[in-house]
Amino acid sequence: MSQQAEEFFNIANEAQGLARELAPGVTTRIFPGEQAMLSVVTIAPNGQGTMHSHPEEQWGLLLEGSAIRIQGGEEIAVSKGDFWRTPGGVPHTMKAGPEGCKVLDVFAPPREAYRRAGKGFASAT
Amino acid sequence: MSQQAEEFFNIANEAQGLARELAPGVTTRIFPGEQAMLSVVTIAPNGQGTMHSHPEEQWGLLLEGSAIRIQGGEEIAVSKGDFWRTPGGVPHTMKAGPEGCKVLDVFAPPREAYRRAGKGFASAT
Repeated sequence: MSQQAEEFFNIANEAQGLARELAPGVTTRIFPGEQAMLSVVTIAPNGQGTMHSHPEEQWGLLLEGSAIRIQGGEEIAVSKGDFWRTPGGVPHTMKAGPEGCKVLDVFAPPREAYRRAGKGFASAT
Repeated sequence: MSQQAEEFFNIANEAQGLARELAPGVTTRIFPGEQAMLSVVTIAPNGQGTMHSHPEEQWGLLLEGSAIRIQGGEEIAVSKGDFWRTPGGVPHTMKAGPEGCKVLDVFAPPREAYRRAGKGFASAT
């Protein structure tokens, strides 16, 4: 019997991960590890999160669609294949383009508030 | 002048990141952060890395192509959109399918040996 199979997932499998509604039209599935945590975020067309920050470092990869990444007071257009680092403590959010978007976020270390079911960005500020 | 622009990258931009040859036919571009490190790995058709391990947790996402992920003594076929966690200390490697593959790896914490130019997997075992 496979022990490793439980460590394998797919971006499109909505049944996997811990579901969380971050904001209206912004949902995610959380995959917690020991040193990092992955978050597969779906933003509805023209949907937007709320500005927030946290001490954990964050990386994002745009998997589908287009969006405006807002961080550190700047707005940067991103398209499929773009990825970015958000240092801890830097305020950030994201606004999807007209077709919506899907983003893979990585938190290191894991965001403890996201290890359990809940709502919202659990912002530190 | 944008301060955030230097935190933005693209998977396909070969000019970005710290280039490293991990094994013949297995190359990567490294993007170091403070709490995590990203590695955009390209494996040639039917190419294969060497089995290795390290204490840092690793996550992988198959971006293109197909491959066999070998970890913990098991072989698991992966295709585009599959992602997986490799706990620290678990021996692992990857073998690309006939069309090769591209993988996004995440290390948390960063692998210090990968912050500078070099060759090989810098394996702990």
